[in-house]
Amino acid sequence: MPNQVAGAGHRAAPVHTDPEDVSVLTALSAVSDPVRLTLIRELAGSADWTRSCGSFDVPVGKAALSHHFSVLRGAGLVEQRDEGPKRVNRLRREEFEKRFPGLLALLLRDEGAVDAE
Amino acid sequence: MPNQVAGAGHRAAPVHTDPEDVSVLTALSAVSDPVRLTLIRELAGSADWTRSCGSFDVPVGKAALSHHFSVLRGAGLVEQRDEGPKRVNRLRREEFEKRFPGLLALLLRDEGAVDAE
Repeated sequence: MPNQVAGAGHRAAPVHTDPEDVSVLTALSAVSDPVRLTLIRELAGSADWTRSCGSFDVPVGKAALSHHFSVLRGAGLVEQRDEGPKRVNRLRREEFEKRFPGLLALLLRDEGAVDAE
Repeated sequence: MPNQVAGAGHRAAPVHTDPEDVSVLTALSAVSDPVRLTLIRELAGSADWTRSCGSFDVPVGKAALSHHFSVLRGAGLVEQRDEGPKRVNRLRREEFEKRFPGLLALLLRDEGAVDAE
């Protein structure tokens, strides 16, 4: 019996949105959430394809996490692929920067300042 | 009897937040709303202090509009003052730009592209 609960893979391949097709409102909505901001920041500090969905330190359940990744894909921020039982991620740094210059830098520049200010 | 319903003034003076005290998450949440994005864009196209709260073309009631302006003040984006019966506005362009470089430009650059893309 496949380990569907513990593993994150063996699902339909994730659907992606090209950053060029993302509106500014969609991009802003995607990044104006504390959990997604944490995901983006952790991804930015990791090499491409090294982080599985389960490796992030965020206080949400599996279904909510899946939703957050879906929003990030829909905003052209994150690309995912399945590697065996794991779904691994990369931040679409260059493509997103080309579409929304400076936005990613703002998100990463203020690291740790969300609660402190 | 004062015309409290039709007029927008004669309330307690609005409370403002300095952009320097605004977190990136607060700023992003403030601008990731279609009504507030419209308010920001209309303000950006108007001279300071020329736009009263009732002069914006947004599909919301008075209470909701008041809330949206409160959010914009809280993000350091808008300054308001009462002039007779009217509450007039200005976009805090320079202060906000200093705190979040490039963000306002992103919001204004994509004008009209929210639904089209």
